[in-house]
Order: sequence, then structure tokens, then C-alpha cells
Amino acid sequence: MAQKLTKRSEDYSKWYNELVYKADLAEHSDVRGCMIIKPYGYAIWEKMKEILDAKFKETGHSNAYFPLFIPKSYLSKEASHVDGFAKECAVVTHYRLKNAEDGSGVIVDPDAKLEEELIVRPTSETIIWNSYKNWIQSYRDLPILINQWANVVRWEMRTRLFLRTSEFLWQEGHTAHATRQEAITEAELMLDVYTEFAEKYMSMPVIKGIKSPSERFAGADETYCIEAMMQDGKALQAGTSHFLGQNFAKAFEVKFTDKEGKLDYVWSTSWGVSTRLMGALIMTHSDDEGLVLPPLLAPIQVVIVPIYKSEEELNAISARVAELVTILKAKGITVKYDDDDQKRPGWKFAEYESKGVPVRLAIGPRDLADGKAEVVRRDTKEKQIFDWNGIEEVIEKLLVDIQANLFERAAAFRKDNIRLVDTYDEFKSVIEKEGGFILAHWDGTEETEDKVKTETQATIRCIPLDAPTENGVCMVTGKPSSRRVIFAKAY
Amino acid sequence: MAQKLTKRSEDYSKWYNELVYKADLAEHSDVRGCMIIKPYGYAIWEKMKEILDAKFKETGHSNAYFPLFIPKSYLSKEASHVDGFAKECAVVTHYRLKNAEDGSGVIVDPDAKLEEELIVRPTSETIIWNSYKNWIQSYRDLPILINQWANVVRWEMRTRLFLRTSEFLWQEGHTAHATRQEAITEAELMLDVYTEFAEKYMSMPVIKGIKSPSERFAGADETYCIEAMMQDGKALQAGTSHFLGQNFAKAFEVKFTDKEGKLDYVWSTSWGVSTRLMGALIMTHSDDEGLVLPPLLAPIQVVIVPIYKSEEELNAISARVAELVTILKAKGITVKYDDDDQKRPGWKFAEYESKGVPVRLAIGPRDLADGKAEVVRRDTKEKQIFDWNGIEEVIEKLLVDIQANLFERAAAFRKDNIRLVDTYDEFKSVIEKEGGFILAHWDGTEETEDKVKTETQATIRCIPLDAPTENGVCMVTGKPSSRRVIFAKAY
Repeated sequence: MAQKLTKRSEDYSKWYNELVYKADLAEHSDVRGCMIIKPYGYAIWEKMKEILDAKFKETGHSNAYFPLFIPKSYLSKEASHVDGFAKECAVVTHYRLKNAEDGSGVIVDPDAKLEEELIVRPTSETIIWNSYKNWIQSYRDLPILINQWANVVRWEMRTRLFLRTSEFLWQEGHTAHATRQEAITEAELMLDVYTEFAEKYMSMPVIKGIKSPSERFAGADETYCIEAMMQDGKALQAGTSHFLGQNFAKAFEVKFTDKEGKLDYVWSTSWGVSTRLMGALIMTHSDDEGLVLPPLLAPIQVVIVPIYKSEEELNAISARVAELVTILKAKGITVKYDDDDQKRPGWKFAEYESKGVPVRLAIGPRDLADGKAEVVRRDTKEKQIFDWNGIEEVIEKLLVDIQANLFERAAAFRKDNIRLVDTYDEFKSVIEKEGGFILAHWDGTEETEDKVKTETQATIRCIPLDAPTENGVCMVTGKPSSRRVIFAKAY
Repeated sequence: MAQKLTKRSEDYSKWYNELVYKADLAEHSDVRGCMIIKPYGYAIWEKMKEILDAKFKETGHSNAYFPLFIPKSYLSKEASHVDGFAKECAVVTHYRLKNAEDGSGVIVDPDAKLEEELIVRPTSETIIWNSYKNWIQSYRDLPILINQWANVVRWEMRTRLFLRTSEFLWQEGHTAHATRQEAITEAELMLDVYTEFAEKYMSMPVIKGIKSPSERFAGADETYCIEAMMQDGKALQAGTSHFLGQNFAKAFEVKFTDKEGKLDYVWSTSWGVSTRLMGALIMTHSDDEGLVLPPLLAPIQVVIVPIYKSEEELNAISARVAELVTILKAKGITVKYDDDDQKRPGWKFAEYESKGVPVRLAIGPRDLADGKAEVVRRDTKEKQIFDWNGIEEVIEKLLVDIQANLFERAAAFRKDNIRLVDTYDEFKSVIEKEGGFILAHWDGTEETEDKVKTETQATIRCIPLDAPTENGVCMVTGKPSSRRVIFAKAY
């Protein structure tokens, strides 16, 4: 714990990896590409889940659970889907092990080969639409508004904790509708839910947009996304919501009778966020001392550390603190009183700092006599002495302030790092030297997109939903363009 | 929905299968042995999860997440564990698919064969102890009290929804301790948590006991369990808690330095309940009309159905009902007002009856004029007319009554179906003709257990923790026995 983190300015990527370990969020397992989410990291993910789940239910969705395994042939049913997902995946070929005859351990039983291989779900559109087929006959069966919290697997060769792992946790919404417009409205509604969650709870400003055709989800007619800017200027796609048209309905032959008695294919959406949000959270707020958490997602919002020499001193402090803890808990504030006798206050300060606890109180015998306490806020590291009397209101207000300040700080950083660029030379120079998001004109072709990507590593993150119409010319080809899109290097 | 269920007295197993579909709880998927948990079934499971999760946290546990995949060699590390779990399991052998050269679809890429096969976790002791190895050095790192909510896979040839499926959902607690006694205390504590959950929330009486050695978890020194009696007299193991001794610590070389500086292996437990509890819930309370739910687990506790002919009548009823809904919600009661114009009241009555909604209110124009409403409780189907004034208290009390009545009814049924038997002839006759639980003397040997199982299909469900010492002789061999054990046929 004494070990300091690599500074962000020195090596951002190394800083990130060290922070995830130091804050005890997650670690690599021996199983290639699979992570272990440790209790402290999981507690943050649980808070995310709880908030999102409540929002899904408020907007009329129910949870359900579909199988982990997908028959190989299902993946082939939607043409572009198979190209996107049927490549790097975990394939189950056998269903039994047996003892090796030479006593060397267990081996795969060759007699237990599956007739059709099963794929560990990389996403569940195919298995779900294969079920919806049986659930939908008439418009009366629509809409279907279902969400699933699940693990998925996409084989990855180069992995990073939370950002890219072979197995990750996520939620995937899958909805079925009677009309095109209703499905589009649903996809947009869920994008708004994600946006509100990112901005209000994660204190992370995001840009809502649509993906260029080449960055669309495999099988979607339109992919909506929210893009966030990390502290190194790179973009992170924080959530996606797909309007799937009638593609999966056609692939799985899902038709319904409308009010007029006419048969038509069902319209659909899917939308998801994953444990990747943990990476986004870390890279939006944290600093060289460790994690910085917005209070609304902090498993511990306030930590209280006693400073004492004798047991009498500790007892006197503990008695005073117990009252405050009761008051704070009644206000719904999560508080930890750390009176562990084995650790020194300095160690504790560093520990809770690295874990991102938003507010730290320290109280010693003199504070007790003076009716004071020392309060440190994690975001600015500002230290202040407050009267003990009424300190619960100070803390309550501080938590609100920190939540807001983190958002403002991230928004200001993003504002400073979005640049309007009109020529490709300038683009290459900015992307190389300054990074960040670049708003530039693009001719709408995949060729230009590919060229920029190959030459600069930057991709079109999205076409912002609120981008104003602006006549211009593509920075690369000079062809006409009617609005700017966002380019950036991305996670 | 009009279709009536097969009667329990005719074919209990068929009744169960039909009920699961009719109440819209779950269905079979096309993937062998894997179920789809539908929204209504999942809502009940979510309630179970929420209550259990809170209890785990109250008792000091945190959630975490470990990988889905287990390297094949890990399973071999604990000798008896591999015998128990490494047989029927899903084996991942490849990590990529590719397009078939003949254009026929996707095939497994032979170049993407894993060096070591991965097993989809049937339970996570091995992968978790492989991690704990790195987390534990000293007694200061102990105890570790972690739980995981996850999906697991155990290949099954004959499956039944909720009761036996290849993939199922569960929680698995995995704890590490410095002393033998502390680990035993933990295993017993979690058995108590399960018992309280079963009896208080599921209204399902259970018998706490320990398993005979041959029925122990593979790798445990002692398996504690709770056994419930289903309506057909068969037993269902509703939860298990294992004292694992130092078995997994030895298998994974997990040692710690104790307070005296001495190195020792860590002591451990694991404990779990699964979606099997859904099956137990169904078979404890439901009847020939459908599901019967204890109010504390019911996604909808009260349904209100308007009876009307004209829109004016409906509007008048809706206005009156809206007030009640607000009052009930404020009391924390989940209520649904079903004013769907497309369905007739009779259809709705049958629908909510089959779904086990504990309390149904019906209100028509005359009730409105008289200031009355009709109330039907699902458990006894008793119908009563109550004054509208104060009806919220009637409902509140009714929910408490139903919760208690379901427990009492199940307890009375169990009492009537536990029999003391002293000779093997009587045993065979009772197990054949009457079923239920049999308390009999057993000589403690596996041979006798096997003989009884082979000849009668009955197994030792548990040695009850509260069984009084009683000198007797084994009903089969005549050898001495000091207390009776419970025999039954089991799910």
C-alpha cells in the first residue's frame, strides 16, 4: 500500500493498471483474459447495477434470463451479425471429462462430442429472438420489453482490466415492437437513460450520437452511443443502443398480426452497458494518489479516522463518533468508522485516499476538547476544520458538492480538449500532439474513414445528435459535408 | 390460459411441468438442458436474491466475481472434488470460428485449439482457492467472507425446469478462516440464514441436518443441509453449507501465519442455494388452479379487477381504486390495477389465480354504491365482502395471515407425513404406499445406505441436528444405532 502509483503524466496506461490493483478493484486471473472483480470493485458495480436496474423498471422493462449457450447455427442466421460476433468466441465441443487411463488426471471424453457446437454467448440477440418467435403472434403480444443481467464472452488476445476482458458482466436489453417508430423511440429512450446515468451518477459528461455505418453493431440499422472523454483525451464508448430494424425478426421469422389483421415482421432494439463503465469511471476522475469516486457510486461515502494515543482517548472519540454515525446513517449516508488498532492513521489516510472515499474525517483528543474535526474532501484534497456541532450538514453538503464538482471538472476538461479542425494536415498534427476530440467535416464514406484510421489511429466516435447543420467540405477529400463529426483515438 | 392443469392427484410431475408454463415462470430453450426464466419467474427469483443478499451482507459478507472458466487441471487438484464435478460438464476446447470454405456457414477453426481445455464452472471452489492463495499470507488477512451470484453448468441428461437444468443460477459463498472452529461456526451460521429464509419468506418448513458421508459435497468434511417436504411427500434439498476443512487449502497450497508466527493451512466453507428454490416454492404451496405464492415473495401482492359495463362505470371505479392504490403503495404493498379493456373479469380472475397473486379485489358499480368490495385470498380461495372504508388494513392483515397460514399448512402436512419406522419390511411398505419422510435407525455404513437406495429408491436425506439420542438398532442390519435419520425419496 505504501507503493506510490506511477504518475498519469508519466505513463497513463501504467497508472491505470496500477490503480486498479492498488484500489483493490480487480485483478487478472490465471484464466486468459478473465478478470476477478474484487469486493471493493464489485461494490461499485453493484451500485451501478442497482441504479440502472431501477431506471429500466421505471421505463417499463422486466428482467429475465436466457441461456449462456448459443447453438453455432443460430449465429449464422443474421448475415452481418455472424461476421461481427462469430469469430473470437469460446466454443463448447464436449460435455464430459473422464479419468485418463494412465492415471495422469482427467481428459476430455472423445465419446462426449456435441452434435452441434455451442458458443458461449458474446451477446444474446440470436438466442433471444429464437424465443421471441414463440412468444409473439399478434400486436397484443407487443411490445416485449426485457432486460438481462449476464456474463458474456468475447475472446480477446490483449486484455485490460474492465476495459477489454474476454469475460465481462453487462446488461442487455432486447425489445420487440409493432412499429418502426416505436422501436426507434425505445432505442432513443434507452440512450437517454444511459446519458442520465453517466452524467448524474458517474459525474461523467457524455456526447450522444450515432455511429457511422462501419462502426455500427453487427445487425443494427442504427447504433446510438454515448462517448466520454478520458483524462488522456481518448474516447471511451460508454453505452450503446441499437435500432435493429426488422433484421433479427427476419432472421428468426418472427411475424405478428397487426390491428388490421396484416402480417408483418417485428421491429426491435437492443442496448447495453458493461463493466467497462468501471474503466470509464476510473479514467474520468482519478488522480495520482488513486481512485476518485463520485459520492453516488461510492461504497463508503465518509470515513472517520480516530487519532489517539491511549485507550481512554479512543473511547472518548468513539463515543462521540457513534452519535455522528447514527445521524449520518439516518440521512442515508454510508459511513465507516475505522478504529482498527493495527494500522496507523497515516496508513489509513493513504488507504482511503487510494480507494476514492469522497470525504474523510479525522478527530483527535484536542478536536474533541475544542468541539472540532478535520474534514478532507477527496476530489480537491482540500482540508478544513469544522465545528463538530452541525458537522452532519457540512458532510451532506460536501457530498453534493463533490458530485457536482467532479462533473464540472470533467466537463471543463472536455471543453478544453474538443477542437474544430478544417484541414487534414492540422488534424494529423492535433491528433498526434494534443489528442482529445476533433470536430471535423467528413464526406460520409467508409473509404475516408478507413484512410483516417489507418493513417492516424483516430476513428469517428459518433455523429453528435445535437450537431448543428453546417455546410463544409470533408477535410480529407474536399467533398461536401453538412455537419461535423467527432474523431478521436479510442479505448 | 383456459386450459386447466392436470390435477396433482392424477400426475404430480405433469401438474408441475404444466404449472411452470401456465404461470409463465420458465420454459425449455432449444439448447439442451438450459432454461429460459421468464419475467414473472425471474421477478420471484429477484425477490429471493434481494432478501438473501441483504442477509449475507448483514452477516458480514461481500459480493465479488470470479471467472466463468476453470482450467481443466484445477479440477484435478482436490481428489474427491474432481470425482464429484469433473464428469458431466461443458468443455471449451476452441476460441474461434471461421467461415467454411464451401460457404455452408461457420465452422470451428482447428487452428484455434486451446492448449488446456477450459471447463464452464460447475462450482467455483477451485478457481476461487487459486485466487485466495495470493490474498492470504497472515491471520490478518482472515477471515475472507465472499459470496458470488453466478450461473453454473452441470451437464444433465434428464432435466426439469428449476429442479434440474444444465445451466442454473445460484449464489456460492466461499469463506476462509484461521481456525477449524471459526469455519464450522460459519457453516452453521449460513445454514441458519438459509433456514430463516426458507421458513420466514418462503413459508416452507425445513429440517436442518448433516448429510451422511456418501451424500457429502465432493471435497467437504461435513455437509449441512436443509431438507423440505414437497406435496407429494418427496424431499427436496433446499440449501447446503459445507465445512471444507483444510481440503482446498491443501489442494491449492494456501497457508497463513498465525498470531504465534506458525504456518498452517487455512480452513474453509462454501454454501449455496440456487434457482432450485423456485421448484421448492412451487411444490410446497401450489394447488390444482396454479401457483400459490407467499406474500413476501410475490411480485404482485394484490390485484384489483374492475367489473363494469360502461366507460362511466369504469371511470368511477378507477377513481376510487386510485386512492386505495396510493395508500397500499405507501404501506409498501405491491398492487396492480388491471383495467385492461381487452380481457374479461373471469379471464383475469383465472389468470391471477394461476399466477399465485395472494389477494384479489373485485369492485363493481354496486360495490361502489354500497361502499364494499369483494376480497379473495389465494391460499384458501375464501371470498369475503368488506367495507371499502378501512379495506387497506384488511388487506395488510390478510397478507400477514396468508404468509403464516402457508407455513402452518405446510408444517401440518409435513407432520402428517413423517413416520417412525422400526423394521425394514415396514419401511419398504411405507415408502412404497405412503411416501413422506421416515425416521429410522441406521447403522452408519455406506453399505446399508446403498442397499436401501437400490431396493427402495429412498436415500438418507439428513441426520437431523436436533435428533434426540435414542438407543436402537439399524432397521436393516440390526446393528446398534444411537439416533434416527431421515429417509425419503428425493428430487
